[in-house]
Amino acid sequence: MLSELIGKIKSSNATVCVLGLGRVGLPLSIVFANSGLNVVGVDTDREKVMKVNRGEAPFRENRLEEYLRRALELKKFQATTESREGVARADIIVVTVGTPTSAQYYVDYSQLHGALEEISEGELLMKAIGFRCTLTPGTINNLATPYLEEKSGLKAGVDFALAMCPERILEGHAIEELYNLPEIVAGINDVSNAIFAELFKKINPKKTILHTTPTGAELAKLFTNIYRYVNFALANEFAIWAEMYGEDAHSIIKVANYDYPRCNIPKPGFAGGPCLGKDGFLLDNNTTFSSIISTAWKLNEAIPQHVAESLRRGIGQLYGKRMSVLGLAYKAGSDDTRLSPCVKLVEILKGYGATVLVHDPHVPNTLTLDKALENPDVVVIAINHPEFNQLAKRIDESGCKLVYDVWGIFDAANFQKASYMRFGRRK
Amino acid sequence: MLSELIGKIKSSNATVCVLGLGRVGLPLSIVFANSGLNVVGVDTDREKVMKVNRGEAPFRENRLEEYLRRALELKKFQATTESREGVARADIIVVTVGTPTSAQYYVDYSQLHGALEEISEGELLMKAIGFRCTLTPGTINNLATPYLEEKSGLKAGVDFALAMCPERILEGHAIEELYNLPEIVAGINDVSNAIFAELFKKINPKKTILHTTPTGAELAKLFTNIYRYVNFALANEFAIWAEMYGEDAHSIIKVANYDYPRCNIPKPGFAGGPCLGKDGFLLDNNTTFSSIISTAWKLNEAIPQHVAESLRRGIGQLYGKRMSVLGLAYKAGSDDTRLSPCVKLVEILKGYGATVLVHDPHVPNTLTLDKALENPDVVVIAINHPEFNQLAKRIDESGCKLVYDVWGIFDAANFQKASYMRFGRRK
Repeated sequence: MLSELIGKIKSSNATVCVLGLGRVGLPLSIVFANSGLNVVGVDTDREKVMKVNRGEAPFRENRLEEYLRRALELKKFQATTESREGVARADIIVVTVGTPTSAQYYVDYSQLHGALEEISEGELLMKAIGFRCTLTPGTINNLATPYLEEKSGLKAGVDFALAMCPERILEGHAIEELYNLPEIVAGINDVSNAIFAELFKKINPKKTILHTTPTGAELAKLFTNIYRYVNFALANEFAIWAEMYGEDAHSIIKVANYDYPRCNIPKPGFAGGPCLGKDGFLLDNNTTFSSIISTAWKLNEAIPQHVAESLRRGIGQLYGKRMSVLGLAYKAGSDDTRLSPCVKLVEILKGYGATVLVHDPHVPNTLTLDKALENPDVVVIAINHPEFNQLAKRIDESGCKLVYDVWGIFDAANFQKASYMRFGRRK
Repeated sequence: MLSELIGKIKSSNATVCVLGLGRVGLPLSIVFANSGLNVVGVDTDREKVMKVNRGEAPFRENRLEEYLRRALELKKFQATTESREGVARADIIVVTVGTPTSAQYYVDYSQLHGALEEISEGELLMKAIGFRCTLTPGTINNLATPYLEEKSGLKAGVDFALAMCPERILEGHAIEELYNLPEIVAGINDVSNAIFAELFKKINPKKTILHTTPTGAELAKLFTNIYRYVNFALANEFAIWAEMYGEDAHSIIKVANYDYPRCNIPKPGFAGGPCLGKDGFLLDNNTTFSSIISTAWKLNEAIPQHVAESLRRGIGQLYGKRMSVLGLAYKAGSDDTRLSPCVKLVEILKGYGATVLVHDPHVPNTLTLDKALENPDVVVIAINHPEFNQLAKRIDESGCKLVYDVWGIFDAANFQKASYMRFGRRK
């Protein structure tokens, strides 16, 4: 009986196999392990697996290393490259693989197909399979479920449980949010719902469990991210309007939001990254018409080019200039550069023939701050890393002629020698 | 000295002339009067002026009549059609005229020009002029200020004060919000700021006063409304996506928002009205490119047509059908039908050859509920007036074959005889 899995989870006798030890899968594995479950984490990256088994966090994430070490000490967690073994030992398999977009913006499902293949090579009877990926609506119903049924000859919901449980954490706060965020559990039937509800209640018995259909859960995840992305785009559109009228978007947005119950405009700046930057395509690819999503994407993706044009207005031709770019991650505090607008800006500036000196305190293989500030003509503060807040004097003394501030963290008064521009304000 | 006006306001010796007794001007006039100032309200509509002077509210607005009667009893307020007299008696003139869009979507500034003409026919020396209209950015700097200077031969900021103080109240809650909302006061110079800050502090000494430039204030007002409008459009886009995937947008949005700190998607439904429906044009008219605003507008404006198509799917050809539409105002609780999507829906249905029976408890010259529910083929609940919440049984017993619920206030289970459809869910 599938429902026996519920007791196994309760008594901490269940083994969970997490496929994918990325920014979704690793924190989840470790939190499950710290909650008393036996966890096998599977990843194809041998180096990452070794690192994780040594208790070293392979990326920046608050308290990840602390929780990882505790899980290893408890002997509740082990990473491996052997998916077959992991799947075989598991009562519950959670798929956390990525669904990136390709250069032509279609969704690349190769990791998902790989995971489905690995799962279906083992015995599925009386197991539970959860999907914690971001998926095009209908993927669970039209692809994952029929695929697993056909390959196994078993009946989903009877012989094995299946649920869509989308991840909605904030990168950098994964651990904390796994304990506290409500969990969307979209089982294909009641017993699937009950098993995965129990699994997430294991993390925190007070966790709110929200049930919907699998397609509803796929949509809910996309709506969540698209909502944020569109609001960032709107803030950026406002920044462009403010520039057009010679005003400062930052101060106007502050005035518009201040104690006003119906206004909560975010800060303008770079909007992108591995989730927000591409999740819209999972919906938008399915229409041939323009949507708010596509307009928002067009706008957010144009901001690095807009910054480059503003720099040209501020300093003249970019060819041959030395340009220091501070920040390469896609957002403050992160080391993640996937689909980062900063990377795009760097490539655009290189395309104009500038020498680009990149420093990001969190991103390996970037220059030191000293090296990045060696005789620059221009300094661009591309990301609002808190570490940059104190750098005004240092930047001013670098001898640069122009400071461009994408996030408006400084003001003209902070610079005695260099002139100052910011996104959202046309001088 | 212009600054003497500050003392005059403090000691309640100042007279304020409010140009326009519409949904912005009348509540403002009355709140000023209840705060001890002498107020003359000017409107071209003779019937409205007589009504107001008799103590009758000319439109639906919470507690308006109560405050109006008190102002009249205190002999602090009087309405008139004589703008010249009103302007002549005033120390402070507040312009609240509308800036509607025309059928070709350009902004119709005729009311503003009328007001500027009326103001400049009188003596402006040592007066203060405030604009509480929604304006294209730059209108104060490039039109109003030079116009008044040229016509009067006086210097703005020295001989007369001038400020942009945009209205941001919620229709229906104007009185309450005039006491409590922060006030944007964008004077053209310090003394203009000081005078209008004092004027609004007269309403509530604890009121937050936010200063910015006149163009900044024009933008802040537009940003506020556009932010809401775009988020309504996004909710509507989500509703369309949900329909496309055979899911229910209402329940998915509930799941996405529930206790989730980064998601606050509004309810899908009709979005329009005299502010949100047109304010975007004040920015968007100034570019030849598509913007998020224009995409949002396209989407929100298409919803009535989408409802008509859904009705055709649900009931077959609309020609010759009797269609009851409940709700004509642009939003719940309102009697305002300007740019209402309900009006658009009614016209679309008529265009298809249906007989349309309209009932709105708040809108004069609509049918009674009884008349509107006489043998309908279809009942459309177009607006979520609270009065409609109890009508399920009554609608079901009307003999209609189909109920279409734009706001998802009912569910299929509420109707025994009629079939049920809602916006955001494809059956």
